[in-house]
Amino acid sequence: MPKVVDHDQRRSEIADAVLSIAARAGIGTVTIRAVAEEAGWSTGVLIHYFGNRRAMLAGALRRAAEISGQRHMEIAQEGDATTRLERALAEALPLDDRRLALGRVFVFFYAEAAADDRMRSEIEGYLGVWRKFVAGAIRAGQKQGRIDPGIDPLATATHLVALTDGLSMHALFDPAVMAEIRNRPPVGTWIARLAPAGPAT
Amino acid sequence: MPKVVDHDQRRSEIADAVLSIAARAGIGTVTIRAVAEEAGWSTGVLIHYFGNRRAMLAGALRRAAEISGQRHMEIAQEGDATTRLERALAEALPLDDRRLALGRVFVFFYAEAAADDRMRSEIEGYLGVWRKFVAGAIRAGQKQGRIDPGIDPLATATHLVALTDGLSMHALFDPAVMAEIRNRPPVGTWIARLAPAGPAT
Repeated sequence: MPKVVDHDQRRSEIADAVLSIAARAGIGTVTIRAVAEEAGWSTGVLIHYFGNRRAMLAGALRRAAEISGQRHMEIAQEGDATTRLERALAEALPLDDRRLALGRVFVFFYAEAAADDRMRSEIEGYLGVWRKFVAGAIRAGQKQGRIDPGIDPLATATHLVALTDGLSMHALFDPAVMAEIRNRPPVGTWIARLAPAGPAT
Repeated sequence: MPKVVDHDQRRSEIADAVLSIAARAGIGTVTIRAVAEEAGWSTGVLIHYFGNRRAMLAGALRRAAEISGQRHMEIAQEGDATTRLERALAEALPLDDRRLALGRVFVFFYAEAAADDRMRSEIEGYLGVWRKFVAGAIRAGQKQGRIDPGIDPLATATHLVALTDGLSMHALFDPAVMAEIRNRPPVGTWIARLAPAGPAT
């Protein structure tokens, strides 16, 4: 009987190895050879699945987006709307290895997106999905009376997603910012400022 | 008499040509040849000053940072603290060609900064200067009673700079975000949320 190979699973395993290396030592250290060692496959297998280093990094980008999507589905089941909102945003802060890798892989492709329309459109799609999820949590918060009904959910989501993504990126460049976001949750502060005026509920 | 050449001025002119092309058509179209045509110098002169394309883009990054520094000095002379704060932040939003080029050049080097420590440290420096300027405007706003005295100026500056930089970057990827920040000033909304509690002053 021929051996059954689950190609999607193997691609995911390779992408996970890329993300592990990116979290540990940065994008600069992601090479075909390093990923082969990490994943336990030959470089030939890697090249069969991804062709070259850039394609492997793009695979890691898609894998990171997929894992974030799964996290959003889990978060959607959780507690009240403001907790969901806070978690949906903190999902992109580099507060553990998984999210550190996510941030590094995204920044790598941001530069490409600024020059290449196909990658721009892919990044636009990921950011759009995230923004819509956050806007949904804001609307739910408004219904629950926890968020000012006067604010525009999508515009506010656009701002909060930019705040979170900007902090995540700056934390990669500046250890002081990394310390700041690890010591004091930045997102909660701003969500608190979205509370309705008048007596606290 | 030997011709006197102001090398700094020539470098600035070349960097300005890079920024013009970046604003008009994106970083992908910045080539030695295109910049030579734009600046009115030969490709030989450009190579004499910058060596290669990457060095020319790094020159444009430094020039963009220099122009922003000059803008900060002008803004420091302006009106009340919250106006200064708003302008110091809007300085990085791609609301005209100059700031569009600034955003594009920075995103290009963000990816490099994620892998190269020298560029990381350079970017860290620029962001640090911007953050301190914004923190100064927040402190002035607190003294003038226009900003909640209970907030931490540097932490809040870190957040506002990240919000602005994140919006600027997302606007490069998504026309809807670009339209949003051009139609509704995003920064003023958040500064208004930093006002002290109680009756408006």
